[in-house]
Amino acid sequence: MAKEYPPLKSVPGFSWLGINLGIKDETPDFGVIASDCKCSAAGVFTRNNIPGAPVIIGREHIQDGQLQAIVVNSKIANVATGQSGIEDAKNMCRWTASSLGIAPEQVLPSSTGVIGKRLPVEKIQTGCESIPGKLGSTPEHIENFARAIMTTDTNPKWGCESIGNATLLGVAKGAGMIEPDMATMLSYFVTDASLSCELLQKMLRRVVNKSFNRISIDTDTSTSDTVIILANGLAGEVDAEKFEEAFTRIAVNLAKEIARDGEGSKKLIELTVSGAESQQMALQIAKSIINSPLVKTAIHGADPNWGRFVMAVGKVFQYPVSLDELSIRFGSESQGMTVNAHNLDSSKVSLDAISKYLQNNEVQLEVTVGKGSFAETVWGCDLTKEYIEINAFYTT
Amino acid sequence: MAKEYPPLKSVPGFSWLGINLGIKDETPDFGVIASDCKCSAAGVFTRNNIPGAPVIIGREHIQDGQLQAIVVNSKIANVATGQSGIEDAKNMCRWTASSLGIAPEQVLPSSTGVIGKRLPVEKIQTGCESIPGKLGSTPEHIENFARAIMTTDTNPKWGCESIGNATLLGVAKGAGMIEPDMATMLSYFVTDASLSCELLQKMLRRVVNKSFNRISIDTDTSTSDTVIILANGLAGEVDAEKFEEAFTRIAVNLAKEIARDGEGSKKLIELTVSGAESQQMALQIAKSIINSPLVKTAIHGADPNWGRFVMAVGKVFQYPVSLDELSIRFGSESQGMTVNAHNLDSSKVSLDAISKYLQNNEVQLEVTVGKGSFAETVWGCDLTKEYIEINAFYTT
Repeated sequence: MAKEYPPLKSVPGFSWLGINLGIKDETPDFGVIASDCKCSAAGVFTRNNIPGAPVIIGREHIQDGQLQAIVVNSKIANVATGQSGIEDAKNMCRWTASSLGIAPEQVLPSSTGVIGKRLPVEKIQTGCESIPGKLGSTPEHIENFARAIMTTDTNPKWGCESIGNATLLGVAKGAGMIEPDMATMLSYFVTDASLSCELLQKMLRRVVNKSFNRISIDTDTSTSDTVIILANGLAGEVDAEKFEEAFTRIAVNLAKEIARDGEGSKKLIELTVSGAESQQMALQIAKSIINSPLVKTAIHGADPNWGRFVMAVGKVFQYPVSLDELSIRFGSESQGMTVNAHNLDSSKVSLDAISKYLQNNEVQLEVTVGKGSFAETVWGCDLTKEYIEINAFYTT
Repeated sequence: MAKEYPPLKSVPGFSWLGINLGIKDETPDFGVIASDCKCSAAGVFTRNNIPGAPVIIGREHIQDGQLQAIVVNSKIANVATGQSGIEDAKNMCRWTASSLGIAPEQVLPSSTGVIGKRLPVEKIQTGCESIPGKLGSTPEHIENFARAIMTTDTNPKWGCESIGNATLLGVAKGAGMIEPDMATMLSYFVTDASLSCELLQKMLRRVVNKSFNRISIDTDTSTSDTVIILANGLAGEVDAEKFEEAFTRIAVNLAKEIARDGEGSKKLIELTVSGAESQQMALQIAKSIINSPLVKTAIHGADPNWGRFVMAVGKVFQYPVSLDELSIRFGSESQGMTVNAHNLDSSKVSLDAISKYLQNNEVQLEVTVGKGSFAETVWGCDLTKEYIEINAFYTT
């Protein structure tokens, strides 16, 4: 375990479990978050037009801004499973609610994994019935939950911060079908701060826009993406601004962890596009670059093939950029390896030095387009043979 | 040489060369098409906002609808090379024109390969000066030209047909940076039919739209894409409708050859999206599927993971499709392995049979969305470890 995990703090009033029901292999595949009392709740879901059954039911259950529990399984996504799938998602809520002594509408269901397969309902029912004896609030319980929601993720992901007397804890999973135009994975946040569901919903949209909506692994948009925050209010009111700052920090870190742990990924790429004439222009160009298979493979191979950045900037047809205005910086501002695309002689940059820099497992890039003062930062990962390996043989 | 090539017929009045100037390895890297007389000419070029110098000069030279020669090199694309690159492209035309005794504006230059490097101008000049002694009109001369324009292509690509007394011959290269929203590669057509440049230009746009604009290898749009047709008129007038039919057939075949020979590709994918409410809807959904890395890797692994098709249909946000209306057919109509996404029980389809079918090196698919009567067919290829291998280490 070379990876260093951030510290894990329990949040008063919330308990967790992550256990194996034999859906996946022998690792946890079933998780629950339960609150002692009703919570203000906010959520954002996939924009995919064919969402999974749990997303359909989850949207219904969160509509009144209240939730008390979340139940999740991994390995099977319960998507494209028709009316039976809807029933399965409802039953997951019913069984969980019955175990916890709450109403089914207080439970949000999530499933992640293969599309087009029915859930193993008997196993899920057994799992739901075992909830009361297995819930707990130790860091181990939380870590087990974080592991239970993983699919092809290679490590669990969480982050927490204190805001005044309150604590905010977020857990996430990512790995594949990740494209940055919406919330694109599963992530759950809980806090004991007291915040209204209206405020939470607005805050969540802003936070997701700065974090999960700025990452990309493969341009494919999952049918199951869900980000939820639950606030039980036990710690009383907090400074909303400070809370949102902490929320954003945790979400950005989780988003980066998801990009770093993208399927087959060896490198986290942080890309800033600056000098744009609008936020939208900066974002479109950033997405074009971070999603380009030719840029991603070049970075994988530590190949200083900056021409592919030129191509990726140029293929954003609605925002013309000329070569005269374009520069590409590899590394941080102080490291300063900048290619001026219009005047190679003035660049005085060593391709060998760029290649050496690209061998790092975290790569920072800035592309300046010389049109204005807007900038956007996005995160992605390289494209590797392991991505092909994982995805050519996923259901079989 | 297991591959079978279509027959190769020379076209009266056109001569060719393909030779090695030491730009690439020992294979041909410099090619010329020369006509005995001025030709009506039409062209379409990349929509990339940062086109290469040869595209900039080529657009100027074709503006009057006339050309007499085309000069091409592979390995270096002469893109993002500033004013020097523009001069290099102009010089390629001047030297070629001087060798052929024509005006420089009658020559269209093309370069394909790495972006951001200067052309080896001395080698190019030597090549241009050697043109007169090396031109010829045998099939071998034409094949050498077709090989000279290749980059990571594994085989040369051509096709020809007779229309009345006239002949139409097309040559193309593809391999990477291929995305179907515009002409995305190099392709040259020559004919001895007599056709006005206005008619040719309209016809070319229609043909490109049905052929090269319907293929995709990796969503990346080259800075060098060019399709040109030259008509020298020696065979007199032809039936324009029949000519366009033949033109379309050859172009579609070349487009399919480009998709089949995409970088690292093991399989040609032919995908029809039908039941759309408009042509645009059919095309958008078809592109979403054919470009999805998760669909491409599943087909590569012969993995019957049809849920990824559902995801790719659902992520076309502007055209909602519901599961009730969606079906996915693997194989031809008569082979009939259809998954009804809304009712798996009615599908009675064996996933093993789909997996076996997907092991073919040509795969036919139809996705029906149940909204109307419009359909579009596109071509693509699978995503493999070899794509990563080729593209992670291309400039070095």
